[in-house]
Amino acid sequence: MNTAPINQNFFAVIPAGGVGSRLWPLSRADSPKFLLDFTGSGRSLLRETFDRLSQVVDRERILVVTGAHHCEAVARQLPELIETNLIAEPSPRESTAAIALAAAILLRQNSEAIIGSFAADHVIGNPAAFGEAVAEAVRLAAAGKLATIGIKPTAASSAYGYIHMGKAIGEISAEVASFEAKAFVEKPSGAIAAGYLASGEYLWNAGMFVLRASLLREILEATEPELWAGVAKIAQSWGGADYEHTLEIVWPSIRKIAIDYSVAEPAAAKGLVAVVAANLNWTDVGDYASMSTLHDANALNAFGPATVIGIDSTGIVVSSSQKVIAVSGLDDIVVVDTPDALLITTKQRSQSVKAVVAELERRGIREVL
Amino acid sequence: MNTAPINQNFFAVIPAGGVGSRLWPLSRADSPKFLLDFTGSGRSLLRETFDRLSQVVDRERILVVTGAHHCEAVARQLPELIETNLIAEPSPRESTAAIALAAAILLRQNSEAIIGSFAADHVIGNPAAFGEAVAEAVRLAAAGKLATIGIKPTAASSAYGYIHMGKAIGEISAEVASFEAKAFVEKPSGAIAAGYLASGEYLWNAGMFVLRASLLREILEATEPELWAGVAKIAQSWGGADYEHTLEIVWPSIRKIAIDYSVAEPAAAKGLVAVVAANLNWTDVGDYASMSTLHDANALNAFGPATVIGIDSTGIVVSSSQKVIAVSGLDDIVVVDTPDALLITTKQRSQSVKAVVAELERRGIREVL
Repeated sequence: MNTAPINQNFFAVIPAGGVGSRLWPLSRADSPKFLLDFTGSGRSLLRETFDRLSQVVDRERILVVTGAHHCEAVARQLPELIETNLIAEPSPRESTAAIALAAAILLRQNSEAIIGSFAADHVIGNPAAFGEAVAEAVRLAAAGKLATIGIKPTAASSAYGYIHMGKAIGEISAEVASFEAKAFVEKPSGAIAAGYLASGEYLWNAGMFVLRASLLREILEATEPELWAGVAKIAQSWGGADYEHTLEIVWPSIRKIAIDYSVAEPAAAKGLVAVVAANLNWTDVGDYASMSTLHDANALNAFGPATVIGIDSTGIVVSSSQKVIAVSGLDDIVVVDTPDALLITTKQRSQSVKAVVAELERRGIREVL
Repeated sequence: MNTAPINQNFFAVIPAGGVGSRLWPLSRADSPKFLLDFTGSGRSLLRETFDRLSQVVDRERILVVTGAHHCEAVARQLPELIETNLIAEPSPRESTAAIALAAAILLRQNSEAIIGSFAADHVIGNPAAFGEAVAEAVRLAAAGKLATIGIKPTAASSAYGYIHMGKAIGEISAEVASFEAKAFVEKPSGAIAAGYLASGEYLWNAGMFVLRASLLREILEATEPELWAGVAKIAQSWGGADYEHTLEIVWPSIRKIAIDYSVAEPAAAKGLVAVVAANLNWTDVGDYASMSTLHDANALNAFGPATVIGIDSTGIVVSSSQKVIAVSGLDDIVVVDTPDALLITTKQRSQSVKAVVAELERRGIREVL
């Protein structure tokens, strides 16, 4: 791992929102994906994200933005998190609002602040390369770039957006190198994804990026001036007696927009984006199929306290309570057992969990959502 | 239904033993198959058997032989059962012991007693034909035959033994006719079963039979004299103060042997067996595959209190508690959810439940058996 001290103006922001409904019934409105342990490590995805970032930045400079009703659980999982570094969203308003609010608050204390955004619910198997990639991204950000971290693809996935690489900038290690970025591209079809993989010019967009907070402000003042004005007003009251009140009044008016559209793509269009290509052994654990890629494809993998008996079966069995779970004669099976809801599907069909959740909503069975 | 009064010497015995381990985790040592509702009728298989027999014989002449630790549950399910008609086995000793004990007890009160044996855990969809078949079997038994009830096969099953029919005796209705029986044959291979089906000469052996108790005694005195002497000794003390003591001393020495070998086959060899061929819409619910034949093959059939959400799935979902169970993209699936054990397999593999139970025993996980 690159152990050179990272720029002291660098702050890591962890936006911890999103329920992860494709991971029902494990993830629920009240116990979202990021608060759960999906890797069998004994730590939640949020805890793993915090620990990984602690390797590259002092914990005083790690912020978490999460839903107000998750603050207590987040504080319990991250006792080292500075109390004033926990920012509560009264309601979910997409990624731009969350990151812009953190940036506006940081700008009040440090006009040189460099802000990095790192999702709370991804798995990274190569933390050393992650450290190198963040350090390089911070260097590029300090030089005025919006630096994304892109993942070298290992398959022709149509589940992710891609970043088209341009001219090489620097080579950091066998696992990490930086490039200019030509463009962000939307999730492609399978055939196009195969072409991207073959070309070697495309990286998976993992949604991690680093830039000067002042650059973020500058871009948003151009693309989403009202949004910026709103978060700036809230940030102005941060730490004051009227903060809660201001938040309550202003927050609901903030526009919901993904940071990809409000910041990343406009920056790419201006040639401001660089990308750090990294082999991170990364997955976003978006559904049970990606969860099973983390484990032995030729076995029945058990997570949780249940005693699992597998006979001629492969796949994953996830449990949240003690029980005997026996599976016989099924391949690529996905079993998720919780005290009030049980899901049984296959790896191939794991996207269909959304249809299950929709059916539960349609039937008004909200108590398990 | 034949409503002629059945011979007043006729007694129906329900041997209610056997856990039904191929139906784990629904059936357990403490809640065997016959105490459970497998048809969704709201009545257990035992209760259905009792109700079906009540149509053809007074309840005063229905006896149940069951394990001592199941007596309380049986009495609870059958409040109409005469208290002295419930015979407790201190330990399971196979079908000959159970039926011979009932016969020996009946012979003490009625030397003309005719005894019929009807398993506690079968499903019969055509109770009218059942009544006709029993009445005909009782007539044949009164005339000195061992009369079995055979099921007209609807498939080339290798899961059942067969009865080879001989000369016609009588035709009762469109659904019921009687024949001499040439022989009992063991469970055949699939190819042989197909031949049996095509020939029209073979019936499934459903293990139901009727004969004079004195004929049963006569055969057992020849084939299993010690066994008969043992049950006769126990029967001698029936109703007396020393019954429990005698039972405790003698019962463990009784030989374990299926009544097929001790009585039915020897009787067939002597030309004493007749068979009543009947269309009963019968199944022995031996495993989850036979359970699913009771239901819609093109749907996901739900039994029990769970809310079942099926998406592009067929099979059965059995539950014993309230819960949401969602199945997506699986055909012929078998899901059995109980509070402490969950089984997931396929219709084709439902015999493999035995392997699951064996594995649980091997691992010493006895609390769910």
